[in-house]
Amino acid sequence: MTYCIGIRLDAGLVFLSDSRTNAGMDQISTFRKMMVYERPGDRFMALLSAGNLSISQSVRELLQVERIEGAPGEPPITIWNARSMFDAVRVLSASVRRVYEQDGHALKRHGIDFNTALIFGGQIGREPMRMFLVYSEGNFIEATRETPYFQIGESKYGKPVLDRLINPRTSLDVAAKCALVSMDSTLKSNLSVGLPLDLLVYRAGELRADSMICIDEFNPYFQMVRSTWGQRLREVFDAMDNPRWDGGDSAHPLLASSERFEPLTKIVSPDTRLAAG
Amino acid sequence: MTYCIGIRLDAGLVFLSDSRTNAGMDQISTFRKMMVYERPGDRFMALLSAGNLSISQSVRELLQVERIEGAPGEPPITIWNARSMFDAVRVLSASVRRVYEQDGHALKRHGIDFNTALIFGGQIGREPMRMFLVYSEGNFIEATRETPYFQIGESKYGKPVLDRLINPRTSLDVAAKCALVSMDSTLKSNLSVGLPLDLLVYRAGELRADSMICIDEFNPYFQMVRSTWGQRLREVFDAMDNPRWDGGDSAHPLLASSERFEPLTKIVSPDTRLAAG
Repeated sequence: MTYCIGIRLDAGLVFLSDSRTNAGMDQISTFRKMMVYERPGDRFMALLSAGNLSISQSVRELLQVERIEGAPGEPPITIWNARSMFDAVRVLSASVRRVYEQDGHALKRHGIDFNTALIFGGQIGREPMRMFLVYSEGNFIEATRETPYFQIGESKYGKPVLDRLINPRTSLDVAAKCALVSMDSTLKSNLSVGLPLDLLVYRAGELRADSMICIDEFNPYFQMVRSTWGQRLREVFDAMDNPRWDGGDSAHPLLASSERFEPLTKIVSPDTRLAAG
Repeated sequence: MTYCIGIRLDAGLVFLSDSRTNAGMDQISTFRKMMVYERPGDRFMALLSAGNLSISQSVRELLQVERIEGAPGEPPITIWNARSMFDAVRVLSASVRRVYEQDGHALKRHGIDFNTALIFGGQIGREPMRMFLVYSEGNFIEATRETPYFQIGESKYGKPVLDRLINPRTSLDVAAKCALVSMDSTLKSNLSVGLPLDLLVYRAGELRADSMICIDEFNPYFQMVRSTWGQRLREVFDAMDNPRWDGGDSAHPLLASSERFEPLTKIVSPDTRLAAG
């Protein structure tokens, strides 16, 4: 599997991807899942991919040359001349559909789904930054202020911490830290997600990616996040009151009856009931 | 969906279940997913169920009367006369298979999987406590010291905290607290899991369930867990150093190059390369 996160903040964009690919438990490899397309000073775009690796590699390759019809009298649109991220994601959508035309039928004959999921975000000229989630079918949705992040791949383990901590006003550094914590939880619970990680932080308006790093198991910052988060989590957990079944003098008694719901009824063995009767 | 947790500790057993059932987003109901079967002083068994509600309700009902062949010259085995939890789970397995015989074909005709997952734990006489995970097919696995808990239903959101905190020596109160934190993360990220919760804590050797409670949104202890955990998590997160891209004088610099992996190569627009050349 895969785990990738894309976050769109007021201050910029954060992208994080793992690099484990597996075709069965005994065929595990390392493939990077982040691609950056840019013309410095004019446009910056980043693509994260999950799903069937042959599909996403083809999409990434095609995206560089794919063209869709432009307005009447205008040249075809590519990611290099698109005037908006919306047009650029339409080019990505066309790439996905072209790969489907090439490979979809043959995959289907072998019972393999055409399975890909892509996060595509960036900025073109003076347009605001935008981020999209593109599905296998080539259709897509855009991140909003209410839902400023997308995940693809093994997304569930690392979702609660993002839900708790991310909003559009979060700073880039804090969002990068949060993405790394979310990745750490996923690494801890799912074998199909693995190091190294690629982390990219894009500052609004810069139109080039300057902060990119490949994080392996020896990265001092990620080592600190992993050990600190695990240890502090345990301290917070230990510091919370344990449940008191008798209520005791606790400020937070466990044993308060629910007004709406009855206690569970036990099924008692028939002979016990007989004996009791 | 559903989220249920069963934990087997040296000190006893902990069971926690939600109560949301849905057949589509517009058909959401409350059904309790925990059943207790007991003959006080002789045996205690608890069953948690996920999957198709019609299947699990039938299984729960049948389990009370199901019988499998006993040893030669011995009467059939039921959950009420089984001498071991292993025999009792074989009775449960037979119940699952009986429901499959009744309903499996008709479900299949309508394209519906025969989908159920059950956690079944307890203690009989002087036997050690045991806990099993039973699949749709009726086969089952047992919890061990290395893997002392099972989850069914929407298990991923709440798995990291269990992985981090539970081991066989964990106390019952701490494990109950941990299960509630795991449930809280799941409730936060998944609509198909909902209150009220049923929590049951069984103390080794008691052969009856004395600590059972239905937790709704007004339960003071669960309210405390939810607010404290969210708030402290944020404090711990805030207290961790943010990444420093320049390395700075940080004890944990982010920007340390990986020795094994190269930085990502950007795809630069063709005309930029031309201009640069």
